Formats: sequence, structure tokens, C-alpha cells
Amino acid sequence: MISWKNLDMLPAYGKLNELKNHVNLQEAMAGENGAKRVKEYAAPMAAGLTYHYAAKQMDEDVLAALQALADEAQLTAKYEALYDGAVINTGEKRLVLHQLTRGQLGTDVTADSVNKRDFYVAQQQKAAAFANKVHAGEITNAAGEKFTTVVQIGIGGSDLGPRAMYLALENWAKQNGCFKMEARFISNVDPDDAASVLKSIDLPHSLFVLVSKSGTTLETLTNEAFVKDALKNAGLDPAKHMVAVTSETSPLASSSDYLAAFFMDDYIGGRYSSTSCVGGAVLSLAFGPEVFARFLNGAAEEDALAKNADIKQNPAMLDALIGVYERNVQGYPATAVLPYSQALSRFPAHLQQLDMESNGKSVNRFGEPVSYVTGPIIFGEPGTNGQHSFYQLLHQGTDIVPLQFVGFSQNQAGMDVDIQGSTSQQKLCANVAAQIMAFACGKTDANPNKNFAGGRPSSIIIGKQLTPEALGALLSHFENKVMFQGFVWNLNSFDQEGVQLGKVLAKRVLAHDTDGALKAFSDLLEI
Amino acid sequence: MISWKNLDMLPAYGKLNELKNHVNLQEAMAGENGAKRVKEYAAPMAAGLTYHYAAKQMDEDVLAALQALADEAQLTAKYEALYDGAVINTGEKRLVLHQLTRGQLGTDVTADSVNKRDFYVAQQQKAAAFANKVHAGEITNAAGEKFTTVVQIGIGGSDLGPRAMYLALENWAKQNGCFKMEARFISNVDPDDAASVLKSIDLPHSLFVLVSKSGTTLETLTNEAFVKDALKNAGLDPAKHMVAVTSETSPLASSSDYLAAFFMDDYIGGRYSSTSCVGGAVLSLAFGPEVFARFLNGAAEEDALAKNADIKQNPAMLDALIGVYERNVQGYPATAVLPYSQALSRFPAHLQQLDMESNGKSVNRFGEPVSYVTGPIIFGEPGTNGQHSFYQLLHQGTDIVPLQFVGFSQNQAGMDVDIQGSTSQQKLCANVAAQIMAFACGKTDANPNKNFAGGRPSSIIIGKQLTPEALGALLSHFENKVMFQGFVWNLNSFDQEGVQLGKVLAKRVLAHDTDGALKAFSDLLEI
Repeated sequence: MISWKNLDMLPAYGKLNELKNHVNLQEAMAGENGAKRVKEYAAPMAAGLTYHYAAKQMDEDVLAALQALADEAQLTAKYEALYDGAVINTGEKRLVLHQLTRGQLGTDVTADSVNKRDFYVAQQQKAAAFANKVHAGEITNAAGEKFTTVVQIGIGGSDLGPRAMYLALENWAKQNGCFKMEARFISNVDPDDAASVLKSIDLPHSLFVLVSKSGTTLETLTNEAFVKDALKNAGLDPAKHMVAVTSETSPLASSSDYLAAFFMDDYIGGRYSSTSCVGGAVLSLAFGPEVFARFLNGAAEEDALAKNADIKQNPAMLDALIGVYERNVQGYPATAVLPYSQALSRFPAHLQQLDMESNGKSVNRFGEPVSYVTGPIIFGEPGTNGQHSFYQLLHQGTDIVPLQFVGFSQNQAGMDVDIQGSTSQQKLCANVAAQIMAFACGKTDANPNKNFAGGRPSSIIIGKQLTPEALGALLSHFENKVMFQGFVWNLNSFDQEGVQLGKVLAKRVLAHDTDGALKAFSDLLEI
Repeated sequence: MISWKNLDMLPAYGKLNELKNHVNLQEAMAGENGAKRVKEYAAPMAAGLTYHYAAKQMDEDVLAALQALADEAQLTAKYEALYDGAVINTGEKRLVLHQLTRGQLGTDVTADSVNKRDFYVAQQQKAAAFANKVHAGEITNAAGEKFTTVVQIGIGGSDLGPRAMYLALENWAKQNGCFKMEARFISNVDPDDAASVLKSIDLPHSLFVLVSKSGTTLETLTNEAFVKDALKNAGLDPAKHMVAVTSETSPLASSSDYLAAFFMDDYIGGRYSSTSCVGGAVLSLAFGPEVFARFLNGAAEEDALAKNADIKQNPAMLDALIGVYERNVQGYPATAVLPYSQALSRFPAHLQQLDMESNGKSVNRFGEPVSYVTGPIIFGEPGTNGQHSFYQLLHQGTDIVPLQFVGFSQNQAGMDVDIQGSTSQQKLCANVAAQIMAFACGKTDANPNKNFAGGRPSSIIIGKQLTPEALGALLSHFENKVMFQGFVWNLNSFDQEGVQLGKVLAKRVLAHDTDGALKAFSDLLEI
């Protein structure tokens, strides 16, 4: 029987609080003990990845307390309830089924009178068939010419995830002979965003994917109109250049304005939609359906690992619990995501939405205020770039920021150069290894300006190469981490009421129905 | 006589601490009083911009305390000492002269036996003359063909600032007939970064700008070798395709490997180098020297405003002091930078480096530990995109994050569309106005999940359009804000010792001179 309790109602949380500053990371990671930790504090993931937490402030005492917390919070039972179709999104009274887009983890889930796994698979197959026809030149522009570019129009979850995934696999696909079409993205209602993309593409050979679950997202419909204007001005028929990804009940679903429509539903939150047709259409068009299927397989395999009740065998759950320890016991306000992979340049921006929109909340799943801190600030940039930027604060600032590294031993593009006895890839990897140790152990210097206190915890996910499977596993890992943290904090991680008030006020501004400071600012901005 | 004192030694800081939670923002911004605040709490900037702080937790009491703090901390005198050539960078024993790249604020500064203003102007003129010759087809590739693309190779300050400035003006330049060459950037030592850029450009018509002050930056020299390999493999002579931006004493300065060399010096920190030749070469090549000169003029005008001792007439100083109040008195850990302008998409990443690398420190300018928090975490994405991402946490999360908005009433590209009675630009502006009010005043709802507490402070810089002058003013504003905060916290904002340890350890990894955990991680990464 599942019981939804606030974190501070769980006895294990009290015990965990007694373990504040329990591990001296500088000592733990020094010498051969450090090497032993690297070997032992490693949890295998899907697609050959491993989650390493040797440089976190963990020992067997803290891990045991985290295991007790996982058990008391019933994390595996709650996950099971979720993938078996319980109404986990209590605020909006919805099921939460994004895992079902990549695999069947539990019992069949029936909603809206259909088997939802069948529904998602059918939509994938529809998008795959469409993509194959585009690639084969069976679906073309009105002149019978092949489409060469796909442009996704969407914002938030319809933009950040798919864009990050596209960038993550672009070089890999080019190197592995499965690059089909270039993809671009229009998201911002700032007209300069659409103008810039439209000026840079070959409009007659561009296919647009309009993504809006409700079919009413202001930015997306505005950008659709922007694009349709441009197509018409170029003498092209918009209906021959556009597909829709939406819900079956939206006004877009059966419109003749689109070549095709692929469906998602209310059980896939925007920020969890990369593995639905929201990501599937554009990624299948860009790289082919086989690559998208491999991406889903990596995610499915990682989702299955998340069922394990033993936190040492469940990297997403362990990562989540370590994050709770760092946030609620150690009192750290933020987490930095630092992939040592240029291909993951926008992955931190996606995780920023995933995490902050899911768990940036002050009330529990029953709408009652909680008395502990919840989701941290998430930010990050790829390494080694970040080293030459904000790492100064991470090493020597007055706040401690836990770090989440990602690294691969091989590059994607297959081009490298040997300088001073090492390749660029080796230099990249040497830097991330060095950073972990610099953050953990620091270095004593008689000059306080050159002194490094250390004691700054980090984890790293290491893999061989960023393949479609590895990307799917990475995505699943973070989605499930956020989900488990939401369970621990007793939040509903699947609504986002915090974005509503701004929308309401913006409509009032556009209707010139304002007074006071809102009118004053509107006047200054010449609206 | 300047006296460098820690913040907690200043009597005004004690008084400021008594003003914690002094202003109820929800009440202050409501009704006609809110409109009055918008009118009164506005400080004019250069280039027609205005810094608005009505939605900050300010009133005349707090402002008076901040003015007292500015006076006691001798902020104007310290700024004067800086631009008149004092050794402000105590750690490295260097002058700090980036303001001199855009204007002469005080007395002549002589160093290395030359007038430094003359030196910087001469380098700008050299870069301008070179750019004009490239545009005129007087400097060409070996086949006598014009260069069409410029690629900057640099990292950290040689990348983030110039890249952000290029993106900020790209659409403006295209619309205003001064777009000369496309610019691209290679920064990361990850070989996939250079590979990706090289595959996407027209190599025979590309000119590379190698930027390294010391001429020894690992990433940059490695990427230079990467590019030279590619040029040679394409049958091209690297020396005909490359210029250097470096210091006069670096090994690159007089090398025959470059078509030309433009100089900066040790008095320009990397993160403050956008207005030196580090930004000047690539921006003059991309947009022409006249546009770069206009950018400098905007910065110079804003620098001059920063001399004002009255904080209400000195937006950079006021912004800095409000930030200190939020960080040290209110206890907020981070600041979000939220430009409602797609052109400023990478401006937050630049500010992240500028701020966190300058003030993310735990020791004062004399190397003594400080007992108060210093630089905050800085992050951000352009609006309206962020609204559909991390704003949930900003509105309803358990931590308060102060916000720094930027907005313009006109777009850059001159394309727009009218949907449902408003243009995209109007929708963009309506959203930022709405967000300010939603954050400040919130909204009471009987359903706690839909309740907005408000009380979340923000400022906004408003301008007519993002022109070169406006961009220069914006850049100067934030550089001077960070400088003034460094003065208040008694830090040396111009060194970055925190990045050194990682470099040392990475070298050891590449030399296979490791043991313990560092060796274990290196093995896992197959170095």
C-alpha cells in the first residue's frame, strides 16, 4: 500500500540529517583508498555507461541511510504505480506514461479506451513510415523535389529536448552514414528567431514540424503563422510543407493544413516528451527511424534498471538520493551539469527545464506547503569550455555546488589530432579526470589565493561513445532521477502551475486591459 | 586616500543588515504606487537604455543605506584608481585597463613605456585596416579569391564574449547592410567541436583568427593544429588563412605563420576583452570596423556614467549594490539573466563567465579569507523560451532567485507577423512586462498549487533596439557592475587562480604521472 508522506515525516530523514558533513572527501579520495572508492562506488547503466559516485560525500553509513530513505519513501512502489498507470499527476489528474513510449515496464495500461503502449508504438510507426517516404522521395514538395531540411516549431519541452538530442547525434549520424536531413528549430516568439532561421534555410526544400500538444501554445501558433507567411510569399503551399505533432483532440489533429499528424497525449508531459513523437518525428526525419529506435532502446533498458530496489544497482535512484542529501542535509543550493562532450552542448539546458520545472515547487502533491527545500537550480555548459569560464567560482567560491560530469573515451566525428603526445580526445578526458580530483581533494598552498579547499562533490557518468543508445540511457537516467526526487520530496513533478500567471497577465497586456505598474511597463515597452 | 576594507568592516553594512526584508514588494508594486515606482526608480544609461529597478526590494531607506555603503567603500575613487592605471589586479600585479580600449576616462596611463590608450587605438586601427582590405579583396586566399567566413579559435574570454557579441549583432547587421562575413567559433578541446565547424564551412574561403594572450593556451593551440591539418589536407597554405590576436611578447606575435598579428596585453583580462582586438578582429571582419567602433562608443558612454558618485545616476553601481543587498542581506544564492531578445541568446553565458570568474572567490584582495558570501551563481536563457522551462522554479520554488531582465521595443530583422491583433514583438514585450509583475506581486489563490507568493525581485534594462551602441552599453554595464561588486566585497576581480589546479592535474594525467583515484579515473576514460 503506497503512502505519500512528506520527507520530514520519514524517520530515515532524521537519521540522514545526523550525517551532515559525515564524509571528509579530501581524505576519502586521497591515496589508494581513493582508487578503491572509484572501483567500488560505480553503478552500471544501460548502453555500457557507468554512474560513478566515488567523489560524492558517500560512505557505507550515508548509503545505508539513503537506502532506508528509499525504502521508507517507497520509491520502487511509486515508480511501479506510475508505469502501471496510476494518476500520479494529481494536480491535472493525469497518468504519467512517458516510459511507455520506449517500453512496457509493467502491466498493460488502458486509458481513453486504448492500450497506451500500442497507441505510442502506432504513432512511432506512423512517423517512421512518413520519414521513410520523405527520405525515399515519395513525399516531396509540390515540384516533386526532395525535402532536405526539417524545421521544428515548438517551445519548452517541444524544443529543448528534441534540439539537445539532435545536436547530440548530429556528428555521430554523419560519421555513421545515417544523416538524412539537417534539422533547425524555431522556438522564441521574438520574431528575430524565426526570421533568422527562415533566412538561413532552403525554403522550397524545407519541411516544418509544428509541435503543440494543446494546439493553442501562443508562441508556436504565432511562429506557424510566421512560417506560413514566408512560404506563401515564396509562392509555396504551406499545406505541402508542414506536419503536426499534437494530441488527437487538438484543433490541429484533423486539419487539412498538414501533410500528416502524429499524436501524443496528456500523459506525456512536455519536458518528458523527447521519446514521444515530439522528438520522434524530427529525429526520425533527421537520422532515420532506426536511429530513433536505438535511442528508445537505450532509454528502455535504463528505465528497467530504475525498478531495482537496491540503490547500488539503481543509478537513477542513487543519483536522486545523493541529490536530496546534498540539497536538504548539506544545504547546497544548485547543481551544475558538465558534459565533456561538445555534442551535449544543449543537454544542460534540457535538464534545466526537466529538473527545475518538475521539482521547483513549494507545495506537496496534495497542495500543502512543505517545510524543506525542494528542486535546486540547475545550470551548466560543456567542458572544457566551462573550465575557462565559471569553474573559478566552483573551485574557490563561497558556496559549494555539486557537480554532475559526463565523459566518453571516444569522439563522434572520427577526426582528431596528436599534439604534444596526446590527442584532443585524450586532453578532453584528462581534463575531466583532473577536475574531479581537484574539486574533491583540493590542494593546500601557503598563498591563500592559490589554496583549494576541496570537499566539492561530483559524480561522473562514463561511456565509450555517445551513441543513440547511450543518449537514450542518459536521458532516461535524468528523467528518472528527477522523478525519484519528486517522490522523496512528495511533490507532483508533472504539472507546472507556476507558468500560468505570466500567461494570464501577458494576455491582459495585449488586450490593453492593465493599470498601475503593469501599464507603466507596457508603455515603456511600447506595446 | 583609498582604503581597502572588507565589507563587514564598513558601518554601512551593519545598517544595511538591519533592513532585511524591509520592503514588501507585493504592496510596493500594487496599484498606482507601483506605477509611480516605475517612473521614479529608473536610471538612464547610454544609447537610450534605461535601468529600471522599481520591482527590486528598494525604497528610500534601503537606497540611502546603499548610497552610504557606496561612499564608505569608496567605489568612485576605486574606479578612478583603476582607470588611471593603479595596480588593481594585486594577485598578478597588473593594471586593469579594459575601459581604455573604448575611451580615456581619466589621466593618461603609461605602461611598458607607451601610452596605453594610444596602444589600444593603434591595434584597433591595424585590425580595421586589415578588415577593410579583406572586404575590398586586397587580402585574399592564395587563389586571389575573397574570404567569405571568419572563424575565431579561442576559449573562455576569447570565445564567450566575442561569440555573444557576434550573435547579438548578426541580424542587425544583415538588416542594416553591413554584414560582411559569416563568423564561426571553435573553442572546446573536444575534437568534435572543430570537426563540426570545419565540415560546415567553405574552407578555401575561410580566414581563421587565433586568439591566445599568452600563446600557450592548450585548447587553442590544439585547435590551431587541428585547423592547420585540415587546411594542409585541402591543399591550402595555413599561413595564408590565419591571423593571430595575442600579446606582443607571445611566441605568436612575430611568427610568419600568420597573415597579421593584433595585440592585446596583460592589462586586459580575458573575460573583459570583448572590446579589445579579441573581439575587435572578428567583429570588424564580420560587420566592418564602423560597426565595431559604434559598439565601443556605446561602452565608452556607459563607462563615463559609472563615474557618478550618486548611485541613482550610476546604473552599474546601483545594480551592483542591489546585488550585494540581495546576496549578503537577503541571502539569495543566484541571479538569473533573462534577455527578451533571441539575439542575446549567448549573452547570459558570457555574463556567467564575467561574473562567476571575477567574484567567485573566498579570499580578499590581500589573500585573507572573507567571512561573507561573495559572487552568486549566474545563469539564464532568453525569454520567452525560459518561461516554458525553468521559470516554474523561479515562480514557485523554495528559493528566491533575483532576476535581471533585458527588453527592446523593436526587433532587429524587420520581419514580423500580426496574429490575434498583436505582432510577435508585442507578444514578446507583453510577456516580459507580465513576468515582472507576476514575480513581484504574485497572485493569491485558494488552491495552494496555483498560489503565487510573489516578492521575487527583478530589474529590467529597456531599450528601443539592440544596436551596436546599445550592446556596448549593456556590456559595459555588466562589466562595471561586477567590478563594483568586487570592490564592495574587497576582492581582486581580475585574477582566476581557481582554474590553475585542474590544468596542473590534467598535465599529470597526460604525462601518465598519476596514482590513486586520479589514475583510476584516467584508466576508465582510456587515456
